[in-house]
Amino acid sequence: MADGQLANHSCALTVEDRRDRLRLARSRRVGAVTWHRLMAEHGSARAALAALPGIAAAAGVEDYEVCPMGVVLAEERQGLAAGARLLVHGEADYPRALSDIPDAPPVLWVRGDVSLLHRPAIGMVGARNASSLGMRMARRLGQGLSEAGFTVVSGLARGIDTAAHEAALEGEGRTVAVMAGGIDVIYPAENDGLARLIDERGCRISEHPPGLEPQARHFPLRNRIVAGLSRAVVVVEAASKSGSLITAKAALDYGREVMAVPGHPFDARASGCNGLIRDGALLVRGPQDVLEALGAPTDARPEPVMQLAPLPGPEAPQRPLKDVALLHSMILNRLGPSPLAEDQLLRDLKVTSAQLAPELLSLELEGRIARQPGGLLARVD
Amino acid sequence: MADGQLANHSCALTVEDRRDRLRLARSRRVGAVTWHRLMAEHGSARAALAALPGIAAAAGVEDYEVCPMGVVLAEERQGLAAGARLLVHGEADYPRALSDIPDAPPVLWVRGDVSLLHRPAIGMVGARNASSLGMRMARRLGQGLSEAGFTVVSGLARGIDTAAHEAALEGEGRTVAVMAGGIDVIYPAENDGLARLIDERGCRISEHPPGLEPQARHFPLRNRIVAGLSRAVVVVEAASKSGSLITAKAALDYGREVMAVPGHPFDARASGCNGLIRDGALLVRGPQDVLEALGAPTDARPEPVMQLAPLPGPEAPQRPLKDVALLHSMILNRLGPSPLAEDQLLRDLKVTSAQLAPELLSLELEGRIARQPGGLLARVD
Repeated sequence: MADGQLANHSCALTVEDRRDRLRLARSRRVGAVTWHRLMAEHGSARAALAALPGIAAAAGVEDYEVCPMGVVLAEERQGLAAGARLLVHGEADYPRALSDIPDAPPVLWVRGDVSLLHRPAIGMVGARNASSLGMRMARRLGQGLSEAGFTVVSGLARGIDTAAHEAALEGEGRTVAVMAGGIDVIYPAENDGLARLIDERGCRISEHPPGLEPQARHFPLRNRIVAGLSRAVVVVEAASKSGSLITAKAALDYGREVMAVPGHPFDARASGCNGLIRDGALLVRGPQDVLEALGAPTDARPEPVMQLAPLPGPEAPQRPLKDVALLHSMILNRLGPSPLAEDQLLRDLKVTSAQLAPELLSLELEGRIARQPGGLLARVD
Repeated sequence: MADGQLANHSCALTVEDRRDRLRLARSRRVGAVTWHRLMAEHGSARAALAALPGIAAAAGVEDYEVCPMGVVLAEERQGLAAGARLLVHGEADYPRALSDIPDAPPVLWVRGDVSLLHRPAIGMVGARNASSLGMRMARRLGQGLSEAGFTVVSGLARGIDTAAHEAALEGEGRTVAVMAGGIDVIYPAENDGLARLIDERGCRISEHPPGLEPQARHFPLRNRIVAGLSRAVVVVEAASKSGSLITAKAALDYGREVMAVPGHPFDARASGCNGLIRDGALLVRGPQDVLEALGAPTDARPEPVMQLAPLPGPEAPQRPLKDVALLHSMILNRLGPSPLAEDQLLRDLKVTSAQLAPELLSLELEGRIARQPGGLLARVD
């Protein structure tokens, strides 16, 4: 399968080959993984189509027929009528990030700015019945990530998805909505206006034939595309066993970064996110945390919460106290009102521990410096 | 210093030696670290006391005198009058966990059940002005950890500390309060009743002379004792730059586990905890998470949020489809309504990927199984 994908990558496909690939994708019981297997095994969509009835017969399916050409031609007309164009796996316009996943959609109908599919993208997913805190966080992230140059990918659902798309549109407009049904079937209907805005300034995509009404089983499929398109997936608010966790799992399987916004453990809407963080997902407090993790330039990095300084080694050499005056002014000059680690003081003054230790003891006995927990030294003024 | 600690460990000290150690600890400008240095350098408290004036003079302090014996005798009387007894670093009753830290208190006044100082302990710290969610979490943790056999160590402060002590008392009563001031100075005064309960069923300790009123500089010192006594420190609710983070830092320095309860990033009271988790602290949702991390037996382990299953390898060998009937019933029997990873199916059926792959394809084409994102297989009924 990998060989087939690589060999097909970036080819200019003929009209016939594109049509055969679509036809194979629409043949009964050929899902994405099966499509790639058949392509790899038979070398071309045409050969796979020719082999399919025999394979089905060998599997005990007597009446198997591949998708009729008329159905494919009708889908092409319907997609064009919906203002969409078709991207076929194996051609250059197909999103590179998505083509890397083992169950990449064989075909995609796309509307809007296709170039967004080729920019670095971040998936944002979360609860449909999100809290107001969750919605605020989704807006903050969507706007910040869009302004930082990332495409924000989500699923046009209620709640977090809607907030992420809207905020990205308010930012630089870089957002991609992955449809659970056909490209021309806006679900939920209340997001019709949002879908129109995305068509104008962002991009919508669907792997299904136009006209397909989404059913329960289509949502996990949609989620894998969100994950596949993205360098990282941020789960904003998710209960345990929610669809967002399927997206997170797909992202992990695809080698994408998984990040999550925490919440209080007593808030059930945070249980999915907290579980992800406990299992190793990066804790996200805002756009900076995401950008920092992806190595993107950020305006302001959050301050580290703690500076870890080693404790003074218990084996530090002791020596008799003498020549006490020498280092004192250097030490006191270096020690400000903020505590400093002894280790750092050693480096700053370029002296050895054996030189410094007795002078620190002297200053301590003089009451001019104080030792604080954690091996920190402070000046007493 | 390490040598001195080890050499002194578990000795039965004479009355004179104990008194000398207390006297050294109470001598002007001798903090905990200095006490250990002097003990290591001079071999005994008596020798250190004899050397101190000379050391001070060499350091330019002309009028230095060690703590007069009368002061030590008065402290002993005052401590006994407060119902406390003295533990001296280097004797067997001194808490072993605490004796391991480089700035271990030279002496401790203790009231109540001293045996609690020798049980595995968990520190709990957090905000004084805690939210109701934070207080509920502290109570849940305090009770659960106490019931699981751990001593709950905290600082008798308002808020999280109070909730932790109270809940531990309601559990098995295993709680230790580390005082910021003297053993007989209850701070805050409103916790007088709680302190009495702890005296009856738990344990209170102080490194300071009885009668000492706590000042700002005493609180970080108290925090290091909480960390030093504990195998792990759980931060329940803490803003950035709060005292709880000093305890967490001390715990890290001492090699203790640091754990934190998350909160929503928009809640400033969670910023310290979220920062700790982002920096690697374990996310805690309840007592089970703490117990699990410490390898303690737990009643019910939380379910893992996701089962990570590898995707089917893209290099899985392909072979012609034949002998299709053989594995089908085994596969269908194994696949229930819940999706299963192909990998797991391989192990369950004890077949090779090369044997399984074509049969899965057949079943897929027959419409009897479906592939789901993440390499999962489900039966279609």
